[in-house]
Amino acid sequence: MPEDHAPHPTDRARLRRTNQRGSYDPASLYAMLDANPVCTIGYVIDGKPFATPTLQWREGSHVYWHGSSASRMLKKSLGQEVCLTVTCLDGWVLGRSAMHHSVNFRSAMLFGTAFRVEGPEAKTDRLKTMVDGFFPGRWDMLRPMTDQELKATAVFGMEIDEGAAKVRSGPPIDDEEDYALPIWAGVVPTRTEFLPPEPDPRNLDGVGLPDHVRDFRTG
Amino acid sequence: MPEDHAPHPTDRARLRRTNQRGSYDPASLYAMLDANPVCTIGYVIDGKPFATPTLQWREGSHVYWHGSSASRMLKKSLGQEVCLTVTCLDGWVLGRSAMHHSVNFRSAMLFGTAFRVEGPEAKTDRLKTMVDGFFPGRWDMLRPMTDQELKATAVFGMEIDEGAAKVRSGPPIDDEEDYALPIWAGVVPTRTEFLPPEPDPRNLDGVGLPDHVRDFRTG
Repeated sequence: MPEDHAPHPTDRARLRRTNQRGSYDPASLYAMLDANPVCTIGYVIDGKPFATPTLQWREGSHVYWHGSSASRMLKKSLGQEVCLTVTCLDGWVLGRSAMHHSVNFRSAMLFGTAFRVEGPEAKTDRLKTMVDGFFPGRWDMLRPMTDQELKATAVFGMEIDEGAAKVRSGPPIDDEEDYALPIWAGVVPTRTEFLPPEPDPRNLDGVGLPDHVRDFRTG
Repeated sequence: MPEDHAPHPTDRARLRRTNQRGSYDPASLYAMLDANPVCTIGYVIDGKPFATPTLQWREGSHVYWHGSSASRMLKKSLGQEVCLTVTCLDGWVLGRSAMHHSVNFRSAMLFGTAFRVEGPEAKTDRLKTMVDGFFPGRWDMLRPMTDQELKATAVFGMEIDEGAAKVRSGPPIDDEEDYALPIWAGVVPTRTEFLPPEPDPRNLDGVGLPDHVRDFRTG
């Protein structure tokens, strides 16, 4: 995966760069965000970099994340510029030279200013969208949130107004003369596997597996 | 995945925090780095945050990454503090209330100062370690790197001297009274799946699949 979204020039043939920082193709970015709930958010706190993993979810042209209201990092990020990155590794690309080894991936970087979702109703709406986005219909099956829980939860967001999406796919691109070498080249594809759900041992008798668990997938 | 490594207090029972920023358990950090080659590096450039995905590999108490020598971000990060994060999502945790939904994961955050590996020999040694770390024995099977390729490749590193590792595992931890509710709770485990290798259509006849491809795994 090319560092800094600036791949080796020789690998550019396979890279579909949908944009540069400063412009973007919303459909590509949205698709990557929707496929990859795990993100890493880059912050600057007191001049120092932090890259923290969390979950993100999208509503229209906004992306949201949440955490503890006590989180120092969330508090410090309010009104600050952040960089939100999602990455999905799709395969390992083995070429006939070290230079042409690579990975197949989809990634997106967004730049924006973090705001806090204020007010219990707006916070509740965002959290419901998160839960139901992953597990359709689950929110209304749950024990409702208490005021105390809502207070303990901070929801942050940013407008998706600047970003870049990148994709690499397909076999290695080797130097033409290297194709004559007797070296195995190709791709080892990877994806996220979902194993059978593990019911909590304390589930009540007769409680069946909901469709939103049976059918749950990301990626 | 708790934002900022500061989980909801109620989820702490399941979290094994191996340390706080300022101290760390090297064995835990090393294991996470070795299991998760995909990382995100947080930089500050001109006061703004960047979080860029790349691959990392570890040699002893150092972690390395690489990219194009032309990369603006790599150049700008030289001598600067960076934050390197790896994350492995192990499962989705569904509780009986929204609050006690979570994810099982392993993550590490490292803080350090980026240096550039200088000189063709040292650079070559690091890249060989990278390739052979993923695919044992592959380096010596490949067409050797050219001087031009080596010049086009920048290798960066940092000493692992400050960081934090975190793990959540196991079933949801619900409020005691919620266990009486007829709500399905449990975990949907996830892991990285490796699909059968896809040989490059231009592989020469008779070139067999190397063990380092057949046996390749991360995670």
